[in-house]
Amino acid sequence: EYQKNTNIRLTLPVVCFVWQIAMIILFGVFIRYDEESDTHWVETKAHDNITSDIENDFYFRYPSFQDVHVMIFVGFGFLMTFLKRYSFGAVGFNFLIASFGLQWALLMQGWFHSLDPQTGKIFIGVESLINADFCVAGCLIAYGAVLGKVSPVQLLVMTLFGVTLFAVEEYIILNLLHARDAGGSMVIHTFGGYYGLTISWVLYRPNLHQSKRMQGSVYHSDIFAMIGTLFLWMFWPSFNSAITDHGDGQHRAVINTYLCLASTVLTTVAISSFSQKTGKLDMVHIQNSTLAGGVALGTAAEFMISPYGALIVGFLCGIISTMGYIFISPFLEKTLKIQDTCGIHNLHAMPGVIGGIVGAITAAAASESVYGKQGLINTFDFTGDFKDRTVLTQGGYQAAGMCVSIVFGVAGGAIVGSILKLPIWGDPADENCFDDEVYWEHPSHSGVQQPHDPQAARPVSPFSMLCLTISQN
Amino acid sequence: EYQKNTNIRLTLPVVCFVWQIAMIILFGVFIRYDEESDTHWVETKAHDNITSDIENDFYFRYPSFQDVHVMIFVGFGFLMTFLKRYSFGAVGFNFLIASFGLQWALLMQGWFHSLDPQTGKIFIGVESLINADFCVAGCLIAYGAVLGKVSPVQLLVMTLFGVTLFAVEEYIILNLLHARDAGGSMVIHTFGGYYGLTISWVLYRPNLHQSKRMQGSVYHSDIFAMIGTLFLWMFWPSFNSAITDHGDGQHRAVINTYLCLASTVLTTVAISSFSQKTGKLDMVHIQNSTLAGGVALGTAAEFMISPYGALIVGFLCGIISTMGYIFISPFLEKTLKIQDTCGIHNLHAMPGVIGGIVGAITAAAASESVYGKQGLINTFDFTGDFKDRTVLTQGGYQAAGMCVSIVFGVAGGAIVGSILKLPIWGDPADENCFDDEVYWEHPSHSGVQQPHDPQAARPVSPFSMLCLTISQN
Amino acid sequence: EYQKNTNIRLTLPVVCFVWQIAMIILFGVFIRYDEESDTHWVETKAHDNITSDIENDFYFRYPSFQDVHVMIFVGFGFLMTFLKRYSFGAVGFNFLIASFGLQWALLMQGWFHSLDPQTGKIFIGVESLINADFCVAGCLIAYGAVLGKVSPVQLLVMTLFGVTLFAVEEYIILNLLHARDAGGSMVIHTFGGYYGLTISWVLYRPNLHQSKRMQGSVYHSDIFAMIGTLFLWMFWPSFNSAITDHGDGQHRAVINTYLCLASTVLTTVAISSFSQKTGKLDMVHIQNSTLAGGVALGTAAEFMISPYGALIVGFLCGIISTMGYIFISPFLEKTLKIQDTCGIHNLHAMPGVIGGIVGAITAAAASESVYGKQGLINTFDFTGDFKDRTVLTQGGYQAAGMCVSIVFGVAGGAIVGSILKLPIWGDPADENCFDDEVYWEHPSHSGVQQPHDPQAARPVSPFSMLCLTISQN
Repeated sequence: EYQKNTNIRLTLPVVCFVWQIAMIILFGVFIRYDEESDTHWVETKAHDNITSDIENDFYFRYPSFQDVHVMIFVGFGFLMTFLKRYSFGAVGFNFLIASFGLQWALLMQGWFHSLDPQTGKIFIGVESLINADFCVAGCLIAYGAVLGKVSPVQLLVMTLFGVTLFAVEEYIILNLLHARDAGGSMVIHTFGGYYGLTISWVLYRPNLHQSKRMQGSVYHSDIFAMIGTLFLWMFWPSFNSAITDHGDGQHRAVINTYLCLASTVLTTVAISSFSQKTGKLDMVHIQNSTLAGGVALGTAAEFMISPYGALIVGFLCGIISTMGYIFISPFLEKTLKIQDTCGIHNLHAMPGVIGGIVGAITAAAASESVYGKQGLINTFDFTGDFKDRTVLTQGGYQAAGMCVSIVFGVAGGAIVGSILKLPIWGDPADENCFDDEVYWEHPSHSGVQQPHDPQAARPVSPFSMLCLTISQN
Repeated sequence: EYQKNTNIRLTLPVVCFVWQIAMIILFGVFIRYDEESDTHWVETKAHDNITSDIENDFYFRYPSFQDVHVMIFVGFGFLMTFLKRYSFGAVGFNFLIASFGLQWALLMQGWFHSLDPQTGKIFIGVESLINADFCVAGCLIAYGAVLGKVSPVQLLVMTLFGVTLFAVEEYIILNLLHARDAGGSMVIHTFGGYYGLTISWVLYRPNLHQSKRMQGSVYHSDIFAMIGTLFLWMFWPSFNSAITDHGDGQHRAVINTYLCLASTVLTTVAISSFSQKTGKLDMVHIQNSTLAGGVALGTAAEFMISPYGALIVGFLCGIISTMGYIFISPFLEKTLKIQDTCGIHNLHAMPGVIGGIVGAITAAAASESVYGKQGLINTFDFTGDFKDRTVLTQGGYQAAGMCVSIVFGVAGGAIVGSILKLPIWGDPADENCFDDEVYWEHPSHSGVQQPHDPQAARPVSPFSMLCLTISQN
Repeated sequence: EYQKNTNIRLTLPVVCFVWQIAMIILFGVFIRYDEESDTHWVETKAHDNITSDIENDFYFRYPSFQDVHVMIFVGFGFLMTFLKRYSFGAVGFNFLIASFGLQWALLMQGWFHSLDPQTGKIFIGVESLINADFCVAGCLIAYGAVLGKVSPVQLLVMTLFGVTLFAVEEYIILNLLHARDAGGSMVIHTFGGYYGLTISWVLYRPNLHQSKRMQGSVYHSDIFAMIGTLFLWMFWPSFNSAITDHGDGQHRAVINTYLCLASTVLTTVAISSFSQKTGKLDMVHIQNSTLAGGVALGTAAEFMISPYGALIVGFLCGIISTMGYIFISPFLEKTLKIQDTCGIHNLHAMPGVIGGIVGAITAAAASESVYGKQGLINTFDFTGDFKDRTVLTQGGYQAAGMCVSIVFGVAGGAIVGSILKLPIWGDPADENCFDDEVYWEHPSHSGVQQPHDPQAARPVSPFSMLCLTISQN
């Protein structure tokens, strides 16, 4: 292979500048405050007979929004720091593409979901911010599959197209099919998972073993990754409830997700321990599979799945996801040539599909006796054009929604992967994958020697340098 | 000593599976959504003339719940990462037992506190989730005493019995004695502290010095532990206010806890510095004793203890807790044979007892002139069977409650400790304590060499290997 | 230079004790619960016809308060952990001075803003806690300039005076000039920035290069610092909205800050990449300059700056702040003799000034057509003595406010710097700067050898010791 050029001194700044200027122009043309975040709200309140400021949607959604925001930036970012020398790239590029993606998502989702036909404007409020964060999550999931193997420019391109595809599939699933998917099992996790896996498949590197020394974790990188795991795990109830109905809808989604995730932890530990000769646990499983329950309850969290139902979903997902790491990931790599750095197939794609199926079944099984007449209408939004839809039909449309998300993920990933294969994006050579030194100024290169203990900070004698030189030759 | 068998490949998966299946069955039989998280809430609202969704208890409690949730999983988990090579066990086993414990707590607390006599069901909402997290906290405190010396199976057993005992003592203290303890100085910290200390006393290891090389911290493990410290410290106002009365009750508990903890930091620093020849600070004190004020205000946080009263409690606790680390911990270990890895006696047991006393005194000193007539009734819940109780009587019952929590902690710990002494649980030998390698696949064992600096990641020459071999022989 | 005495065994404990006792006495005399956190609230509710507990200000502000609290203790604390061996000091001293500062701030801000003339008391609630945290932020910013070069006693003195100066300049800017500054571009960031820079200038150390080996970061300290960066970045929308008007005011401030910060990330990455020969990114820029947009929107976040306006502010700040690190910081150090450890000039001082200017311009440009008549009055609080003020006049007063904050920062810093120059505070010698060993018991000194990998924990052979001795001689 020819020596790859990873110099991104022109491409990265140009892409960041031009795209950010485009965002400013498009926001200037299209984006405005919605009526609850505009100074005219005092008039809206009077007009709508709203008696207290506390009924502003801000107070229903803001705590959940902040939790979701933490999941996007700390959760996803730190979950990917597990590699011994790619933590800067994990946290830093996650930061970059999420910051771009959320702006583009506000526009794309705005055009598809909330463009005001009279004014031609998109009016945004706190729920728009949550949806933008959700949309970004799909792309960050995809990043997990290609972690360490792509350049930041490729990631930005992947995010541009990912957000675009997301907005379209979301429109089809939520608006046209009228499927419910408040926590995004389908629109976020299934789509994001297959989008990333397909891209990774297109970008297959047969000689990736050349960077084997940089794969795997070190002790402290695994602990950093647990920060990501725990913030995702703890705030997942907020994720699945962030845009559900006010009142009982948010309340129930929290309870279901809380229980489901607790159950997942126990079966993950069980399978992880059982898979080793002496019962030792594997950090990879604990960091990832414990989260599968949250993914799988993304669609059904707001339904009356009942507390034990949530436990069952978590129970199964812990098993399936951990087994995925043990059996399916090696198979995907060897046989299907899909190199999945973070194992997103086990954490997002499979559990996402399970979530879609669980959602379709629980929707189809919903009954007026359990939900109440009005409760059924509220939960499935059987109003307007959909007021005559039955729960069975709804189940069917839920299943159809899941297929749409897979199709968009695979087809979109194939196209975007081909674009990313062009030799202009500054991706690293096989032997330089998973190495922060390619795209980051390293502390150890800053002239000051990098000490790992207090001793090492002291001046190094020529003799010592000689020793090192000889021994590492 | 015979070589201990730490193979948990059967016991751990079996316990996780069987107990999780039991949870599913029991949840199926007993647990249902409460009226505020059920789709029938739309009818409840109409029936009770509730005008806005925002009056769902969810919006009063959810932000506090999420903060408490962070304390349980990140706070307790990371606080225990200070050991140089037991961070996986700290965060990972904390994750496991909390996930099991909260399910079991929902059942146990449900049976004792909210079993509906007509339907035989337990109806859960966001406050139940908070109480489950609280219950788990007691067991996580106990984990601190035995950190590094027990197997995950032992921890699960300890949690099973711990939650059970907790629910009973909590029922006696809060319902029968009608003591107030919103932040759990007595029911959580005193109980959890003495439960753990007694277990550690029963499991005394005379030859623990054999693992001395694994005790103590390294630089970065101390910083990880500060993540735990700070998230506990910052969110403690949420902890102490999470289940207090709506409105002024939550508001006041936050102010008191915020002030108390600030005061604790200053006296902790003062004593820590004064205890060293040159005034240097000890990370152990900063990580732990700074939190003692929050523990000690668990009972009185919702009372009219007044801002300067909160400062005084914090002032004293910083001193007592830090002195505990300097003087009492060595005494406990040498004389009483209690090996307390994290010093929970100084952070939870003693401050918990102080909190019980502070609560009894401030309750007994409450007056209508300070609280107002209705305020007094609201704060101490002088309604129903207790409508004629005086504040002096209340003070007495508060003190009685504290005794109950100590008795349950010590007696329960003795029994559970004896069970855990059975040689079937896979606990480590004395020389393998505080070592993650016993229960965790280590990154360094994964075939890929573990580098601690970029140099080390490069191929190592035979010469270098020889050097290492000789010098480490 | 004579050998400096860094023994603080007397000064630090005495300062902590005496000041904390002073706090208790002053709180006893002055501080009381406000009507929303007092048990008499049940009467207030009846009197004011408040129908629901949810209208207690607690529920409008508490989620934002907790986010701000996280920014103060984890955000600022961890942002400063980037130095290879000063992370204890970064997190620990930040913890200490913030804990003292918030108590003193409640008193100082209370005396200036909310002393009840009839009772002579200060009544505090959740908004007071937020303001106290804000006030502390100013001092923590100043800490960034002198990080690693001062003793904890000096930091406490700096905080005592810093909080005092803050309360006065805040009173002048917000009350006398009636400028708006909800997120504190002027009162927090500009003041804090220049306060710290001037102190650092007075304390200039010409021989600081003697501790060069301790400057700079190591791989994992940079990742710890990213924890600080991200929690600041994610919660900045809460910071800028925490004390804005209920309803649309908080809602709009969140949207603006969210967008502004996203934009900053892209231009920071662009400039950082462009500044290196091969386009590599510099962690210093990513850790700091990505936050500049939040600082610069502190004043205008609650205005109708419009979404694209927020993006433009972020766009410019990312560029200016990153360029500051590249060009201005070296200039400040070499020419102006200002040693700015964390680069607070680029993160707080400059963006703060920009924020003041943006605030003045957007205020002057406000119109009834955009804000609505009542909206304009609400946003700029044109009531009481200020009911006839025009937006143009308001713009002028905003600009005047910015000048006040600079003057207070520089003049206050000069005075306080002179006090800190006295040779009684136990500051470190030039060759011991940036070294935790001066003020912290080190893990490696605790008798147990400190291993950096499992091997190192094992006994070291004499041969190995010899090798080390020779090579490091």
